[in-house]
Amino acid sequence: MLQTPKGFKFAALEAGFKYNGRNDLALILSDTPAVAAAVFTKNKFQAAPVTVGKEILAESQIVRGAIINAGLANACTGVEGIEDCRESLILAAKYLGISDKDLLPSSTGVIGPRFNMDKWREVAPKLKGALGNSDAVEAAKAIMTTDKFPKLAWGEIGCDGKPVRMLGMCKGAGMISPNMATMLGFITCDAEVDPEWWQDALRRCIDKSFNCVTVDGDTSTNDTVMAFANGASKAKAESDENKANLEALLLDICQQLSYMIVQDAEGGTKVMHINVTGAASDEDAELMVRAVGNSPLVKTALFGEDPNWGRIVAAAGRSGAEFDPEKLTLSFGKIVVFEKGKPIEGDMDALLEPIMRKQDVQVNITLGDGKGSAMLQASDLTREYININADYRS
Amino acid sequence: MLQTPKGFKFAALEAGFKYNGRNDLALILSDTPAVAAAVFTKNKFQAAPVTVGKEILAESQIVRGAIINAGLANACTGVEGIEDCRESLILAAKYLGISDKDLLPSSTGVIGPRFNMDKWREVAPKLKGALGNSDAVEAAKAIMTTDKFPKLAWGEIGCDGKPVRMLGMCKGAGMISPNMATMLGFITCDAEVDPEWWQDALRRCIDKSFNCVTVDGDTSTNDTVMAFANGASKAKAESDENKANLEALLLDICQQLSYMIVQDAEGGTKVMHINVTGAASDEDAELMVRAVGNSPLVKTALFGEDPNWGRIVAAAGRSGAEFDPEKLTLSFGKIVVFEKGKPIEGDMDALLEPIMRKQDVQVNITLGDGKGSAMLQASDLTREYININADYRS
Repeated sequence: MLQTPKGFKFAALEAGFKYNGRNDLALILSDTPAVAAAVFTKNKFQAAPVTVGKEILAESQIVRGAIINAGLANACTGVEGIEDCRESLILAAKYLGISDKDLLPSSTGVIGPRFNMDKWREVAPKLKGALGNSDAVEAAKAIMTTDKFPKLAWGEIGCDGKPVRMLGMCKGAGMISPNMATMLGFITCDAEVDPEWWQDALRRCIDKSFNCVTVDGDTSTNDTVMAFANGASKAKAESDENKANLEALLLDICQQLSYMIVQDAEGGTKVMHINVTGAASDEDAELMVRAVGNSPLVKTALFGEDPNWGRIVAAAGRSGAEFDPEKLTLSFGKIVVFEKGKPIEGDMDALLEPIMRKQDVQVNITLGDGKGSAMLQASDLTREYININADYRS
Repeated sequence: MLQTPKGFKFAALEAGFKYNGRNDLALILSDTPAVAAAVFTKNKFQAAPVTVGKEILAESQIVRGAIINAGLANACTGVEGIEDCRESLILAAKYLGISDKDLLPSSTGVIGPRFNMDKWREVAPKLKGALGNSDAVEAAKAIMTTDKFPKLAWGEIGCDGKPVRMLGMCKGAGMISPNMATMLGFITCDAEVDPEWWQDALRRCIDKSFNCVTVDGDTSTNDTVMAFANGASKAKAESDENKANLEALLLDICQQLSYMIVQDAEGGTKVMHINVTGAASDEDAELMVRAVGNSPLVKTALFGEDPNWGRIVAAAGRSGAEFDPEKLTLSFGKIVVFEKGKPIEGDMDALLEPIMRKQDVQVNITLGDGKGSAMLQASDLTREYININADYRS
């Protein structure tokens, strides 16, 4: 079923960093050196694996893969946390017979606690044997925290007559916000790529996918998306056409994965697709989609299947975006509910009921100020979100 | 019990705009002309009473009082809503025997629907008879929407040997955010004041009270605070000392009222007092207190009595404030939990339990970057908030 790119192996193991009775360590390894691109969190507090991963990539964009743990974020752990991270890479590399500069680290989970390094010493010798015994699904499960389902997407294109495969996985359900690599994501591909183009392509695709989703407006200390291309397909993405096709596949996979994060939002039941067009600038449109998508009042109304356009226009009004309120038009799906500063009359609630009952709800705001636009996928805010987050740590 | 300033009368009536079986219309009227100061919402969508109130004050700062309804916000109602508002003032003024330029209008409730003007025509003739039959408590109750209790504060100072009284009331429990007059507030005072100073003093006090609270980061289309001073005490706030004393009383009353809004936050159980000091600028500190105070993850942890400092530093890190993470120190009350980029070791959870169980939780962030500071009072985020807001409208 899964179309795994050639020359990549996966492992999923139980290290017991925090969880018991489930895998919490994943390894993604290319048989041969691969070109790595990565986008990291912009949070001022950067987790140890983010710091270490950036250091490794600054030396060389050619690595073998990534090692990812769930349960502990290794964030806000000081110099000791960075040393722990480096030691874990040395341990893993030693037993895999590679250099510790060949592995990018990644962590997700609770901020603050340090690793019990004995757990790393116990699990490292098992890595090589586990490699290839698990598929990408098992690896995607091993990196879950509050996720309810593993998140995978894959595809194939032709490149100069040869098949090129791509497979991505991600995790994330809370601490999700736009304008960042907002979770952990790992993409494998067997094309041969130019390192600089690969990094640029990943950045462009993330701006149109992971940066366009929000659960709670919170951005984590660990957010990372990495993409590895190992050339095992023997197809090189060199011509403009091949590059465009490969980037389209990368974008498709990123968008499939980022949608799944909102779909699996902590306690979430619905996905709101907010589109703003006609803004004075893209920045104004961006301010507006975020104000709407992160408004607790809008998000609870979505949960309650209430087409409460008043909360949406109020959020738009306080967003900081420059616009003329008299020109704002708002529709749910194709049904216009608000036009030129006031609501459309009629029994709109009845007309809107089938739209609000959907899992995916389109909210379209048209302004009359220019050509700026933005879109955002946002989850609803539910009792279950509170249940999950009022006692996550304990 | 209540110390009402001289020369002010209150009325509370059942107009039936939206609610049944409760008062939903309040009148605050000075026997003689009073100096009015007001601060209005910065939302791009301004409710009709905001537009009309600004017009009246632009003509003259000398009025008689305010008329306030609950249930319908008269916001996003277009030109018709403004006409409705003006007509309601004409009706009220006619039966009170005053000018329609003597009353400032104010509305709170659902955005969108227009008034049934017949309700105004029915209730207006009853205004004069009701005046003085209700006290300030009844008026404060009449302007409640999702509030669980009426919010009043009062005080007295000496001014050149004469007593000067001040009494404030406000309403608000949701759609509360800093940087705005964030709800409806009405302050009466029997001092004689200079109009320009009174407006400046109100603005300064609001910046240190209503602008320092947040429930959900949402700012309404109707937010307004008005302050009336009628001079009935025969005491004039003219000397620097008298002005300072009166402004101190005004600030005290504003801060008492704004705290009550957070205390009565929709579904709220706790108030978090967030202090940031040592920031590069006040603006940086402001960004940080807002990011922390509006973070759903921080707010749910507060509800769960979980001293989850990781979520707080992560929110600080994504706030957009410029600061050196290695110099950030975080304490709950006097207990430091995080210093110089990493957590304090030890069984902090046990030490923190009595602090987290309190209704008021102090969160102090000290940076090492300068002299900027900010404070914010924020509510927690609870299951009950969702219950209230998922079905408020229907």
